[in-house]
Amino acid sequence: MKSITQNTSSPNSLSKPKADGIRIGMIGAGWMGHAHTLAFQNASSMFRGAYGAPELVAIADVSQEIATKAATELGYRKASGDWRAVIADSEVNLVAITTPNFLHAEVAQAAAEAGKNVYCEKPLSTKPEAAKAAWQAAVRTNVVNLVGYNNIKHPAQAYAKELIDSGEIGEIIRISGTFDQDVLLDPAAQFTWRHDRSVAGAGALGDLGTHLISLAQKLIGDFASVSAITRTVVKQRPDPNGSGRMRVVENDDVTLFNVVFANGVIGSLGTSRMAAGRKHALRYEIQGTKGAIAYDQEQMNEIKVYQNVGKSRDRGFAVVPIGPDHKGYSAFYPNAGVGIGYADLKIIEVDELFRAITCGTPVEADFEFGYKIDCIVNAVLRSAAEKTWIDL
Amino acid sequence: MKSITQNTSSPNSLSKPKADGIRIGMIGAGWMGHAHTLAFQNASSMFRGAYGAPELVAIADVSQEIATKAATELGYRKASGDWRAVIADSEVNLVAITTPNFLHAEVAQAAAEAGKNVYCEKPLSTKPEAAKAAWQAAVRTNVVNLVGYNNIKHPAQAYAKELIDSGEIGEIIRISGTFDQDVLLDPAAQFTWRHDRSVAGAGALGDLGTHLISLAQKLIGDFASVSAITRTVVKQRPDPNGSGRMRVVENDDVTLFNVVFANGVIGSLGTSRMAAGRKHALRYEIQGTKGAIAYDQEQMNEIKVYQNVGKSRDRGFAVVPIGPDHKGYSAFYPNAGVGIGYADLKIIEVDELFRAITCGTPVEADFEFGYKIDCIVNAVLRSAAEKTWIDL
Amino acid sequence: MKSITQNTSSPNSLSKPKADGIRIGMIGAGWMGHAHTLAFQNASSMFRGAYGAPELVAIADVSQEIATKAATELGYRKASGDWRAVIADSEVNLVAITTPNFLHAEVAQAAAEAGKNVYCEKPLSTKPEAAKAAWQAAVRTNVVNLVGYNNIKHPAQAYAKELIDSGEIGEIIRISGTFDQDVLLDPAAQFTWRHDRSVAGAGALGDLGTHLISLAQKLIGDFASVSAITRTVVKQRPDPNGSGRMRVVENDDVTLFNVVFANGVIGSLGTSRMAAGRKHALRYEIQGTKGAIAYDQEQMNEIKVYQNVGKSRDRGFAVVPIGPDHKGYSAFYPNAGVGIGYADLKIIEVDELFRAITCGTPVEADFEFGYKIDCIVNAVLRSAAEKTWIDL
Amino acid sequence: MKSITQNTSSPNSLSKPKADGIRIGMIGAGWMGHAHTLAFQNASSMFRGAYGAPELVAIADVSQEIATKAATELGYRKASGDWRAVIADSEVNLVAITTPNFLHAEVAQAAAEAGKNVYCEKPLSTKPEAAKAAWQAAVRTNVVNLVGYNNIKHPAQAYAKELIDSGEIGEIIRISGTFDQDVLLDPAAQFTWRHDRSVAGAGALGDLGTHLISLAQKLIGDFASVSAITRTVVKQRPDPNGSGRMRVVENDDVTLFNVVFANGVIGSLGTSRMAAGRKHALRYEIQGTKGAIAYDQEQMNEIKVYQNVGKSRDRGFAVVPIGPDHKGYSAFYPNAGVGIGYADLKIIEVDELFRAITCGTPVEADFEFGYKIDCIVNAVLRSAAEKTWIDL
Repeated sequence: MKSITQNTSSPNSLSKPKADGIRIGMIGAGWMGHAHTLAFQNASSMFRGAYGAPELVAIADVSQEIATKAATELGYRKASGDWRAVIADSEVNLVAITTPNFLHAEVAQAAAEAGKNVYCEKPLSTKPEAAKAAWQAAVRTNVVNLVGYNNIKHPAQAYAKELIDSGEIGEIIRISGTFDQDVLLDPAAQFTWRHDRSVAGAGALGDLGTHLISLAQKLIGDFASVSAITRTVVKQRPDPNGSGRMRVVENDDVTLFNVVFANGVIGSLGTSRMAAGRKHALRYEIQGTKGAIAYDQEQMNEIKVYQNVGKSRDRGFAVVPIGPDHKGYSAFYPNAGVGIGYADLKIIEVDELFRAITCGTPVEADFEFGYKIDCIVNAVLRSAAEKTWIDL
Repeated sequence: MKSITQNTSSPNSLSKPKADGIRIGMIGAGWMGHAHTLAFQNASSMFRGAYGAPELVAIADVSQEIATKAATELGYRKASGDWRAVIADSEVNLVAITTPNFLHAEVAQAAAEAGKNVYCEKPLSTKPEAAKAAWQAAVRTNVVNLVGYNNIKHPAQAYAKELIDSGEIGEIIRISGTFDQDVLLDPAAQFTWRHDRSVAGAGALGDLGTHLISLAQKLIGDFASVSAITRTVVKQRPDPNGSGRMRVVENDDVTLFNVVFANGVIGSLGTSRMAAGRKHALRYEIQGTKGAIAYDQEQMNEIKVYQNVGKSRDRGFAVVPIGPDHKGYSAFYPNAGVGIGYADLKIIEVDELFRAITCGTPVEADFEFGYKIDCIVNAVLRSAAEKTWIDL
Repeated sequence: MKSITQNTSSPNSLSKPKADGIRIGMIGAGWMGHAHTLAFQNASSMFRGAYGAPELVAIADVSQEIATKAATELGYRKASGDWRAVIADSEVNLVAITTPNFLHAEVAQAAAEAGKNVYCEKPLSTKPEAAKAAWQAAVRTNVVNLVGYNNIKHPAQAYAKELIDSGEIGEIIRISGTFDQDVLLDPAAQFTWRHDRSVAGAGALGDLGTHLISLAQKLIGDFASVSAITRTVVKQRPDPNGSGRMRVVENDDVTLFNVVFANGVIGSLGTSRMAAGRKHALRYEIQGTKGAIAYDQEQMNEIKVYQNVGKSRDRGFAVVPIGPDHKGYSAFYPNAGVGIGYADLKIIEVDELFRAITCGTPVEADFEFGYKIDCIVNAVLRSAAEKTWIDL
Repeated sequence: MKSITQNTSSPNSLSKPKADGIRIGMIGAGWMGHAHTLAFQNASSMFRGAYGAPELVAIADVSQEIATKAATELGYRKASGDWRAVIADSEVNLVAITTPNFLHAEVAQAAAEAGKNVYCEKPLSTKPEAAKAAWQAAVRTNVVNLVGYNNIKHPAQAYAKELIDSGEIGEIIRISGTFDQDVLLDPAAQFTWRHDRSVAGAGALGDLGTHLISLAQKLIGDFASVSAITRTVVKQRPDPNGSGRMRVVENDDVTLFNVVFANGVIGSLGTSRMAAGRKHALRYEIQGTKGAIAYDQEQMNEIKVYQNVGKSRDRGFAVVPIGPDHKGYSAFYPNAGVGIGYADLKIIEVDELFRAITCGTPVEADFEFGYKIDCIVNAVLRSAAEKTWIDL
């Protein structure tokens, strides 16, 4: 029998923190804080990245008690009831933000001003000026800054972008898209922070529509003007305090908007949180003069591509299984079609983030990107309120 | 061996004209004239209708020569280079109109004024006032009047209407839809009458969008206001006269518009004649508070229906095969899923028309319906030109 | 106003019988007799064929009364309670057979021996020796002979055959296929002739499986050996005479069989008349060394084709809309994707038949083809009974 | 500013090993060893399980060098070139086996005999007698034993099993299924261990078919007899040693087999590693007297279910998005349709394993299950060789 040898940690370990590695301070200990933490723990192993495993330094939530419980469960060394303590922690060099939306920009700005790299869950703000301030702070202190629009990191979207940028589907004419869910279909579902404009900002538009906008921004480019309509279908929902009181829903259940992009493309986008039967219907179709692309995240391991080439009798939308030819996929599986999931998109995003921190490579959804989206949301809401086209 | 007996025509014959039956004068001898004639010949046999086979009396086109050739091929007894002669023919009691769009309303009005029943291919007009005049003439002379919006006659649409009207999918929130084709994707395709505003009226909107509007009108109801954008992607096309000259395309290749319906439903509709890879993509999704309906005419023998009932673990969009439970289908096949085609929609339409003439039953897409659609088209074009919402 | 001119029938008329044209004697006045008659009436008009409209001469059914009623409804001039009278009728030059299965071969043989062209609904027989006799009679008298395997006439199948024969999908490895319906899912559905082996022959295999076999025979080639299993799920069904008595179901509800083809391809085929939720699921996948073809008749206006060429990142099954590039389609519509239906397959079949009669062109599903299929059915049943491979 | 508090590990930590927790010895450091390790690291966090994070104690591969490199990368404390050293390690209480197939049973038996819990990648053996010996060893020493048939752990399959066991889709009539990939479509792809019968056992049948069999075993039950055919399409492949020599492919590229199950259900199963365009096509359709289930792992976040209830006009296959109602899903996401991936199936499997070890709950795919599958594979190969039905 051969001997068994004690393994001594090496600088190349994927599973152990590096001395000069990434040291995380997490602000927000809810579902999304958990999701981020999982991505932190898996990125190095999946991507066999040079950055090594990150160190989970500290976590904050609204009380010391909640934070301590989360630290224990998720594996952070320190806990605090004060998010400023995490930012101030000298061990932390990356602040992750998964608070309710209204706090994003304030925390992000503070972290950037403290010289910490910042990973902020989307949206960057509920008010564009706050997003702008965070962005400018990050520029001033030259920290890595990324907003968690993870859906744009799907290998399918890297492929779509390639098809568009290469001219393979010709001049782009039009985009249609929607992000629909039915999470709030039940009119008896209670009032939550998501219905409170001061906390959540926009409704379906802020929660779901922003993901769709992030894809349009990535794939088509800057928005020039929008014409929108919104509808709040369920106007009051029961107060969760059990008082029997009804509270007024302050934001949109459904928003539809037409767009003219800066490059002349026109588009028709929409979103609903009351779309019966739709669970994660982030869908679009992009039509160009030489081809088209159709995507639906409910079938997230394929993308449909039409190219107007070859024999006409053979032409049709090809149902392309996502695979190693599409950027990001090969970290997960050697063969196409095996099946990535939502969590894997967060891992791809975190890989981009960690590489940016350790190697200085660029990130796609930086704070400028996040700010643009917040401006678009704002313009859409204004357009709906004023019943007119709004320029960006 | 038993004897073989000479069959003597009877009043119930499905294949022989009845003395008091339908006697057709066709105006327009192109592809659509042929399509109508086929539907005339099949309706009685498919529906085993009380109306018997129609008599093909006369056909007109732009010249006597063309008309005579068509009469021979299609089986009409008389031919004329003058459409007024067909209307004036005392044998004719139903005038069918398949001319280019700009002539529809004028011919329809003349036929109605002559007391003839009228079957007019869509759209009823290229100008709403002309449609209105035709409609009012038909009302005055009390003739049967029908515009050929055959897609609303699909058994799937009868079923969708039932689901909506019964409240089974709840209060309707939103409709999204498109009618896309790629017939004009090639920028080198020649200029035709379809690009000439004076002949065709609107472009994609008039040719395709009107079908989508007819479905929205049927399923959701009256439009209250619209906000639109149009785009002409290929601005000039080669003159078909071979001169090498380019002619200016005068109407829309793509049109997108948001809608508020009179009942508060909101919608997002669009159409393109340059949608790469789309051949007959007449698609919609209607979302209600208790369910949803999704349809795509490229898979015209099924419709997807979500009903928010039963065990939640079992819920999903049901892919319902069109069958005898859906109005109109059983004339064709005893079992579901056998496969109806486009031509069958025209047969269902003609059955409705023939029953209206012989039994006085109502028609769905009468001239008032056609007039409403023409008004909507007009409002959409104005909205796009003026960049503002237009009320109907 | 221009004059209107009386049209005089010409030799090129699509809608009037030609003097030397096709003169039909129909044997069987049920649903399928009606379906054939519709195809007879439409073929000339759709295909603008040189053969002109056929003359509907005579029809027979089991009684003079039934035949006379059918003659009136369908437009045949003569009627008889004796099928031999129709064959003997000197005016008839094409005998169409839509009787119950067990009579097909006997009538077909008699018609062929009388020197009449024969169009026999599938299957050609319920016993291969009878099919062989009919085939040999047709060869002796040199009449046109065709078995109604209309599904092989779908433009999609002409395209599939092209892809296979050209080598574009490489050497064929394997075919999988099924033809499933749920028409007999209900165990309380009454006993009919379809359950009576002496009348119907095989059950699901004879009714549905034969269509699947016809596609495999067309696309892959001759069968060399089969290994099968059958199952009769509902062993007794109520006698339709209302006696309350149960009658024994004598044939298969489900049949599965593996195949080795003469060219070495292997296959797995199956059929069920108790396949819950399946309405017309005639499906196959053919896999070759360079590509694959997948078809499902429930979406009969598309076919999925994979070709292992081009950039690997772009590869996927192309959902090809059936269109003018696929043989037979252009008779119906100028553009792809418009939507043909089941009845159109019969029209394509009848066009092939009429051209064969008038122009001497070959037919695909001749009696030899029909005989081969009957031999395969027989071998499958023997294989299931003997639990062993059976060579053909 | 509130203070930040040092977190001290607690017994409930999801991210830190428990004193009495799971201590893993991994045998095999390839792709699958990595995949297992990821699942080990994520299970506790996803399932918030009582078992805590496992300790990665030791890893073995064919040489000390390879093992040491893997230990470093994957985070194991010790490394060895001898798998027996890992089994002998007193710190290890769970042995994971990801070696080439031919070694599985030997290592599994040795681990079981050493009193270690065993997690063996599928198949359990390449020869049923070896699988039986491993199974019996595990029974004797009463250790937890699980074979990595992870596809049966998909929440969709838990749901399918529920539908079947509850009788909701009636008496099961038939299963059809296939597991197809095109990984070896290229005839120039080199010879690997997968083509060597002594190392891999069966070809497509062993690699892919076993997954399909595992689903049939779970959902339908024990196999009673099989009739099979196999085909090796590419008979020789280039030796990877670069000699230019060709090596004979010793096992099946395609296998098709019919099955009779012990409960009378009949089935038609197949598998190919040369199925052009298919990437992970693990598909089946199960038909019962009251409904049907259709699944395709290429769209792994949905399953199609037909239930023959409700109004007939509304019936169709429901496309059910996998969600919290389906067992295992809710560990990942609160809402349906978010998208699990292949790796998540391994996490569900590992959760079952860890719970079995710490709480004594049962596992589904134990060594008896694995042994049954190996017997079926053996019977299928014998049936193909002997061209006869083989009973199990």
